[in-house]
Amino acid sequence: MKIGFVGFGAQARENLIPACNTIYGVEIAAICDSDPAKCREAAKLFNFDESRVFTHHGEMMDKCRPDAVIVSCYPTEHYKIACDAIERGIPVLLEKPVASSYEDVIRLAEMAKRRGVVTASGMNFRFAEITERIQNIYDDSIQMISLRQMANKPVSALWDYDDLFKSFLHAQTIHGLDLLIHLCGPVKRLSVADNSTDNSIIFSVLLEFANNCHGTLITSNTSPHFTFDLDVLADNRLHIKSTSLNSLSVADLGKTYLQGETKRWCDTWAASPLSSGYARAGYTGEILDFITAIQSGERDSQTAFSTLIETYRCMDAIEKSCKQPATVNI
Amino acid sequence: MKIGFVGFGAQARENLIPACNTIYGVEIAAICDSDPAKCREAAKLFNFDESRVFTHHGEMMDKCRPDAVIVSCYPTEHYKIACDAIERGIPVLLEKPVASSYEDVIRLAEMAKRRGVVTASGMNFRFAEITERIQNIYDDSIQMISLRQMANKPVSALWDYDDLFKSFLHAQTIHGLDLLIHLCGPVKRLSVADNSTDNSIIFSVLLEFANNCHGTLITSNTSPHFTFDLDVLADNRLHIKSTSLNSLSVADLGKTYLQGETKRWCDTWAASPLSSGYARAGYTGEILDFITAIQSGERDSQTAFSTLIETYRCMDAIEKSCKQPATVNI
Amino acid sequence: MKIGFVGFGAQARENLIPACNTIYGVEIAAICDSDPAKCREAAKLFNFDESRVFTHHGEMMDKCRPDAVIVSCYPTEHYKIACDAIERGIPVLLEKPVASSYEDVIRLAEMAKRRGVVTASGMNFRFAEITERIQNIYDDSIQMISLRQMANKPVSALWDYDDLFKSFLHAQTIHGLDLLIHLCGPVKRLSVADNSTDNSIIFSVLLEFANNCHGTLITSNTSPHFTFDLDVLADNRLHIKSTSLNSLSVADLGKTYLQGETKRWCDTWAASPLSSGYARAGYTGEILDFITAIQSGERDSQTAFSTLIETYRCMDAIEKSCKQPATVNI
Amino acid sequence: MKIGFVGFGAQARENLIPACNTIYGVEIAAICDSDPAKCREAAKLFNFDESRVFTHHGEMMDKCRPDAVIVSCYPTEHYKIACDAIERGIPVLLEKPVASSYEDVIRLAEMAKRRGVVTASGMNFRFAEITERIQNIYDDSIQMISLRQMANKPVSALWDYDDLFKSFLHAQTIHGLDLLIHLCGPVKRLSVADNSTDNSIIFSVLLEFANNCHGTLITSNTSPHFTFDLDVLADNRLHIKSTSLNSLSVADLGKTYLQGETKRWCDTWAASPLSSGYARAGYTGEILDFITAIQSGERDSQTAFSTLIETYRCMDAIEKSCKQPATVNI
Repeated sequence: MKIGFVGFGAQARENLIPACNTIYGVEIAAICDSDPAKCREAAKLFNFDESRVFTHHGEMMDKCRPDAVIVSCYPTEHYKIACDAIERGIPVLLEKPVASSYEDVIRLAEMAKRRGVVTASGMNFRFAEITERIQNIYDDSIQMISLRQMANKPVSALWDYDDLFKSFLHAQTIHGLDLLIHLCGPVKRLSVADNSTDNSIIFSVLLEFANNCHGTLITSNTSPHFTFDLDVLADNRLHIKSTSLNSLSVADLGKTYLQGETKRWCDTWAASPLSSGYARAGYTGEILDFITAIQSGERDSQTAFSTLIETYRCMDAIEKSCKQPATVNI
Repeated sequence: MKIGFVGFGAQARENLIPACNTIYGVEIAAICDSDPAKCREAAKLFNFDESRVFTHHGEMMDKCRPDAVIVSCYPTEHYKIACDAIERGIPVLLEKPVASSYEDVIRLAEMAKRRGVVTASGMNFRFAEITERIQNIYDDSIQMISLRQMANKPVSALWDYDDLFKSFLHAQTIHGLDLLIHLCGPVKRLSVADNSTDNSIIFSVLLEFANNCHGTLITSNTSPHFTFDLDVLADNRLHIKSTSLNSLSVADLGKTYLQGETKRWCDTWAASPLSSGYARAGYTGEILDFITAIQSGERDSQTAFSTLIETYRCMDAIEKSCKQPATVNI
Repeated sequence: MKIGFVGFGAQARENLIPACNTIYGVEIAAICDSDPAKCREAAKLFNFDESRVFTHHGEMMDKCRPDAVIVSCYPTEHYKIACDAIERGIPVLLEKPVASSYEDVIRLAEMAKRRGVVTASGMNFRFAEITERIQNIYDDSIQMISLRQMANKPVSALWDYDDLFKSFLHAQTIHGLDLLIHLCGPVKRLSVADNSTDNSIIFSVLLEFANNCHGTLITSNTSPHFTFDLDVLADNRLHIKSTSLNSLSVADLGKTYLQGETKRWCDTWAASPLSSGYARAGYTGEILDFITAIQSGERDSQTAFSTLIETYRCMDAIEKSCKQPATVNI
Repeated sequence: MKIGFVGFGAQARENLIPACNTIYGVEIAAICDSDPAKCREAAKLFNFDESRVFTHHGEMMDKCRPDAVIVSCYPTEHYKIACDAIERGIPVLLEKPVASSYEDVIRLAEMAKRRGVVTASGMNFRFAEITERIQNIYDDSIQMISLRQMANKPVSALWDYDDLFKSFLHAQTIHGLDLLIHLCGPVKRLSVADNSTDNSIIFSVLLEFANNCHGTLITSNTSPHFTFDLDVLADNRLHIKSTSLNSLSVADLGKTYLQGETKRWCDTWAASPLSSGYARAGYTGEILDFITAIQSGERDSQTAFSTLIETYRCMDAIEKSCKQPATVNI
């Protein structure tokens, strides 16, 4: 399978291209970046001749005829690039944020559906090793989910956005919020408590899901390090915790140990000290699912644009709530 | 200082009396329990003659003339016992829940104020070692506090309450909620998401404090073990975590390490492997503060009944919100 | 049961007396300290009149007739005090180090045996909660045990010893070494690698036990904090770890999880966040066993002087090896 | 830089080739495997025509003229392949075990030196992120190092070895032992305690290094999971711990916190939850150093064959000691 990359920035170099390289059968066929300097850099690094490096994504699609494109540009550019791919019937994976507005996500999803083109997005947390393990642990459904996802950026507006708060939502919150919706489904009500100031963003969201589960998303750009701290209650007996993406503990009301002793024992899982590659954080999984969907010819990917609509709807609701502080029913 | 105990149940035996015994200068002068069998047991264990064991608390107060009383009975009994102590001018510490209603707490606080009697309550988390450490770490104020306090009980109504939900609030929630209020002050608004069923209680509360800080309290009776998992953001640069009452980690935006490297280093504190006694969980601290307040003759204790009014107000608001599910402004 | 304490220093005040106070039915009958100032302090703290405070231990034994004595003085004084108790038929618990020499331990053990007096020693690690749990986990026997027990003291000679190295052995090493011998039995061979200098002590011991198990004891006075980090292999399938005295993890070759998955899951146990008192670190257990042995009238305590002979023999071998660096067969 | 791979087994596929793929400027030029089926698989996966796939390593070297070869075959084959590369002046990286005997390692090192060819080996732990961090933390030198490296394999002889014990040494022990020697230098004396039986291997090694530092290596094939648990004392004041390859804690006698408090605070570092790729476990580092050494034209790699001689000498000493159980001076 020949893949063309659009955008040769940090995310492409550090995660997407290396993750593709670990998947046998995938070939990096061409690279496109609107910045000629980056094109020259890519050409040199990959030992690519000029037939494989482009400054215009349409030209790359037409000349190179890739089996799929993976795009990581500014969110405002994603819409046009995705349209151009969909029109040509080329499956497209957009890095997050897939678009700069809720409306654009809906339009892209509709267009892809109409044309029957597989789409995908860089929602790697859905494929993180611990996400998949958690989904295997409970039988019925999650009753409570709480995520504390702290970060130290952004501290100024990103891309060509003019707003730090929206930049934060689209760069950070999107991951945690999308994961909660991925695990618990649509949201019927949310409340936000916010005490962000000019450059610091700190807010907590209380979410009520349509399936009666509820959750909390606690997030900030003032924590020195990225942290990911998840608690889940399920099945009226399980308490699952993951304090990073590389370990899990599961407390089960029914578990016994030591001749029937039950108190204070958990099952814990930890990634191997030698754990390597791009599977643990979900990059491999998101790309592999995209490729498998294309190859199957029968299904869309699990991160299709249509699956992001609810996430964008909730980001908008959070933004609106924070700028006009009152509980918002959505 | 001579102390009389009213109530000789598990909490008195396992925590309060042993904690008193670690404080030099404190004498267990008398024990009262309305159950004659427990009185006989106490007499035997402490080698007390009949002049030091009572079935009526008033008789104990009058005959033994203790310098203070420590009471751990049913919350419905606390009101009468506390009144009897206050009327006699005897300082009184009530184990939690100090009373079965918000109104009773207000009445007791007013009575104690009028009579100038020192009161205290069993809010040990306020004096837990990590609470005191956290208060020393930040300079200005907490911006966000998130507590996940899970438990496996109660699963049926406690004491002479007829309601599991209220029992849970007064037995478990009271601790976490009181700690948040202790650290962040009065609450101006709270929202609750609740999906409790008959015997399982699972709810999350989003709290907005008068000082603009906000918090989340996530709690349940379906987790197999008691857990206490706290996150705090403060000073626009600190992220403090405590995943039990015996360790802390502090991430500080300004911290450098290894020739100026800043990424992903934290300061962590852990209790000694040999940590013993009743200070770490706060039992010693709460009693010591009570005694010191009495001895000073000049101040009330830090857990005086009056300091619990806000906690009871919020418990009532949570209860009301859960039984009539809509956001409640309080 | 009336207990007389000899020595009113930090260990008695902070651990032994409070631990006794948590055991119902035990009465602190008298306190002896050769320092009159400490006697006055004890009298005031306990509200004891002069009939219960002594500067001579013999006088206390004769006048107060305690059912048992608990002694925490200088190790050089322990011999005489223990002899005086044994001669009077009074059960005696000696804090560690029970004696300043291997020969004294043997003599005391023989004397106690001859007189049929119950003896005990302050080897609290044998009764620590994790020790007892570990003993319940394996079926057959330990195959490998490795303890890293680091400390930040002593940094100068203790008591009336004139040697830092011996002080370190008798104050710190004794605990870890005794625990290994308690769990694995007599030692048939040991090798030491030592690079201690004047004030810093750093050595590692490789131990081969008579039962073919082997172990390592790694210790130092240059670590900023006391740490206790234990690994055990047993039954050809269990890997047990405890990185402090309040948690355990058990990896078991046979364990399955998640539809038969076996990789990287462990069972873990952690003490309650509210864990209080003197049981977890073993102080309660060592005293309770002493008392129970006395009351039974049929057995010696599990920490009887005789059980310390092997520990002292190995401490001597380590000391000899370090001062004359060559592998020593013992 | 064009790289030819010899051996297309699990280690090449899962770690070495993907790690190479993350290094820009490196091209997988050819793949060789003596098994034609694996060659066909490689050809298909990489979309290679027959000019880039080989069953004979000499032919690959001659026809493809790679700038370097990376070899992961049976250790008994490594000698011949390395000789053939060295004779042709082609830099060669051998996966561990680089050879099946101490003598072969010496011969290969001498040959490479004579021909001035850069060599390297798959000692990824030397380049693991925590190894590099540890080396930056201490000023002077390590005083004590203790590694518990447990595994669950091999449980039968590997490659064409006829001996499980030697297979375990060359597959597992080599990593930990090599790391200790990498950090502490040549060994002057070692003692082994071994209680391996037919299929289970459990032994501990006490190592004294020429620089007076000492260490312990504790290892087994009976632990359910691979674990890596390292303690280091250095500079008479530092206690460094790493309980996996993704976190570190550093206790420093001089560290203060909270208005001068020093007790029980550590500095801790943890890999990002999103940490991906092959750098953390050292695969990227070992290959990058090899390439950089080749490109510099002035130095050998840091994992040159010559740097493995001491490791093989000690493996032989351990093997001899275990088969003839008495302390061995080496």
